[in-house]
Amino acid sequence: MKANGTAARHLDLALAATLFAELERRTRRDGGIVRDSYGEGEQAAHDLMREAALGLRLEPSVDAIGNLYLTLPGTDRQAPRILIGSHLDSVPQGGNFDGAAGVVAGLCALGALRAAGASLRCDVVVMAIRAEESAWFDVSYLGSGGALGLLDPACLAVRRSDTGRTLEETLTARGFDPGAIRERRALLDRRSVRAYLELHIEQGPRLAAEGAPVAVVTGIRGCKRFRNARCVGEYGHSGALPRALRHDAVAATVALLGYLEQAWSREEAAGSDLLVTTGELHTDAHAHAPSKVAGETRFSIDLRSLSIEIMERIADETRRAAVEIGRRYRVAFELGAATDSPPAIMDPGLRAALLRQLEQPLEMPSGAGHDAATFASAGIPSGMIFVRNEHGSHNPAESMALEDFAVGTRALIGLLEDFPL
Amino acid sequence: MKANGTAARHLDLALAATLFAELERRTRRDGGIVRDSYGEGEQAAHDLMREAALGLRLEPSVDAIGNLYLTLPGTDRQAPRILIGSHLDSVPQGGNFDGAAGVVAGLCALGALRAAGASLRCDVVVMAIRAEESAWFDVSYLGSGGALGLLDPACLAVRRSDTGRTLEETLTARGFDPGAIRERRALLDRRSVRAYLELHIEQGPRLAAEGAPVAVVTGIRGCKRFRNARCVGEYGHSGALPRALRHDAVAATVALLGYLEQAWSREEAAGSDLLVTTGELHTDAHAHAPSKVAGETRFSIDLRSLSIEIMERIADETRRAAVEIGRRYRVAFELGAATDSPPAIMDPGLRAALLRQLEQPLEMPSGAGHDAATFASAGIPSGMIFVRNEHGSHNPAESMALEDFAVGTRALIGLLEDFPL
Repeated sequence: MKANGTAARHLDLALAATLFAELERRTRRDGGIVRDSYGEGEQAAHDLMREAALGLRLEPSVDAIGNLYLTLPGTDRQAPRILIGSHLDSVPQGGNFDGAAGVVAGLCALGALRAAGASLRCDVVVMAIRAEESAWFDVSYLGSGGALGLLDPACLAVRRSDTGRTLEETLTARGFDPGAIRERRALLDRRSVRAYLELHIEQGPRLAAEGAPVAVVTGIRGCKRFRNARCVGEYGHSGALPRALRHDAVAATVALLGYLEQAWSREEAAGSDLLVTTGELHTDAHAHAPSKVAGETRFSIDLRSLSIEIMERIADETRRAAVEIGRRYRVAFELGAATDSPPAIMDPGLRAALLRQLEQPLEMPSGAGHDAATFASAGIPSGMIFVRNEHGSHNPAESMALEDFAVGTRALIGLLEDFPL
Repeated sequence: MKANGTAARHLDLALAATLFAELERRTRRDGGIVRDSYGEGEQAAHDLMREAALGLRLEPSVDAIGNLYLTLPGTDRQAPRILIGSHLDSVPQGGNFDGAAGVVAGLCALGALRAAGASLRCDVVVMAIRAEESAWFDVSYLGSGGALGLLDPACLAVRRSDTGRTLEETLTARGFDPGAIRERRALLDRRSVRAYLELHIEQGPRLAAEGAPVAVVTGIRGCKRFRNARCVGEYGHSGALPRALRHDAVAATVALLGYLEQAWSREEAAGSDLLVTTGELHTDAHAHAPSKVAGETRFSIDLRSLSIEIMERIADETRRAAVEIGRRYRVAFELGAATDSPPAIMDPGLRAALLRQLEQPLEMPSGAGHDAATFASAGIPSGMIFVRNEHGSHNPAESMALEDFAVGTRALIGLLEDFPL
């Protein structure tokens, strides 16, 4: 085990275990965890974290839309702060660790600093963020986006998927102020934030596969997506139509997707960060038959990367290949417009500093979105740590070993003690 | 134009034109042709052919299940006969030429022999076959199969798709004898048939593409089909799951179908007769999403060839490739059992003799099934001529030029005059 410094030795894992157990006790409904955004479950988690902060003598405050801030004061209260954040909501029938682990890690880190008697120049603030999951309101990053004044006020009319009540009604009922969103008011001055740090369970299987407890996140992948691509050929008799006279939409689509797979292999070999997925693909159930050459396919292409350039290069290649393959197979591809969500790059200085805290210095990109993307996109230096998690996320079987959580939290503590910026 | 011999010069194209016009007049309903198997439309066509045979002084007879025989007597009435056959039924809203062209060609051929005063040693018989299309009763080749005593008696319980009446009820209502099918009685002694000849419109676009009026059919392709193939992988997050940890059913299926396309190219280059079609392909609409690696695909593979060996070789290769690609992509293919319908090879002597009648001696296989397949499979030497047809078959836009029909019919007449066997 790498020695992270003095304070890391004061990490109180019993506190973490108690908080996770109590979180589960208070928010388990039927088989899974339910911490509904701006609902009873999320509020129960906020209440618990506020109770825990009392014992750690942290200063609590809540902003206009319900984000909770638990502050360890620095020697210079005017100096830009360091935030350690994550969300406390979950998907319906979710798991105990997605989101909450980051808030518990923040509390444990501040507890360790307190116990070690470490004094930092700036405030360090655990931020328990509201409503990160889009499962309840179909909007991502409500809490972090709202804190930075970045939300489109139209989101106030979005209805919660279960209650049917709008976000505006829901905020008001909880005693929060929808006016902050309506007026795009920044509840958190971004110039007052020196850095944003987040610990989160990995939502993929890579750490488990690599046998590593944690990794530093390089960035949060963006997505470029052809949501409704289509190939139009012509139906014909499978026994009577020679290949040269076919307009075979399946054969052409297979050729295009095969081409994309090769392009992906080439990018991988060159070290590019890229994922290529066709999750939907189908012939027309009303017209197809085993004895008919297919006259149509519909499919999706989902490109993910830390680099806009790589996604645009592959999208351009896909468009060119569609024209060429379409000509070769006598069909027409209609890829449609691509939708974009840009990648968020983690701060290089924070990445390097976090890596130095690790005995197994491993880095990996995040495929799923996180509040850290909001902060990074707002120009705030951001850093993330992933903790190994078996069985995927967004389900009750989420599983994070306390030892792995400890490795990640010690890295956070070490970083705070030895802050690089 | 190749001189086919004396009798061909007596071909009465006006008779053909009249018969096609009258067929259309009597059996057109709304936009298309309806000659329903064992229904009013088919019966109207049988009545018309019987009327036309009167003028040509042919001997009419009808077998127990309604096939109509119109005979030009030979000098030796005991000598094995030559049949010129095709069906008179159509699909619902079909075209005027699919099937009927062969019966009209037979009548015109016998008319030309009569007009030329040609005397053949054996009887030559136009056979107007019942119920070839499986659109009405879901059984292929009811008329020809029944004539040769080859039908499974279970077919008597099959219901007509529109009336809901069983084949047994329908036969009885028309005055025919279902007992012939129940007892598997051969209504036509196969030893009494020297040869079976059939002229039919091509159901694909090849003759139109090659600019040829007719072709001699080499054989009727068989079919080997994986009707319900499946690939089982595992769903996962498209942004979080690295390629090496995916179990991507779409990627694996694309690889398998890409492999099959290459195998097909290789067979084509070697001159093999083969068609490979995936007409159905889909991910699971209840589970797929653009942001999810696909955990399942379902698809069909339809192999067509004149050669059982080629189909079996490709099926074996497909099974081996599925194992290898399944391992490579960490998925499992379940191809399921293949269904088989064997190819029917046309008689080499008849093929050669028909080719000698043509100015543009072209051969091609038939992808669709025809009554000739029943006769060839029963060991009766069979030959077929395809006539160019635009706009495909089984639709009202079927289109056959009378000049092309004349080229095919003259070839039949020439063959009869100069019979090779």
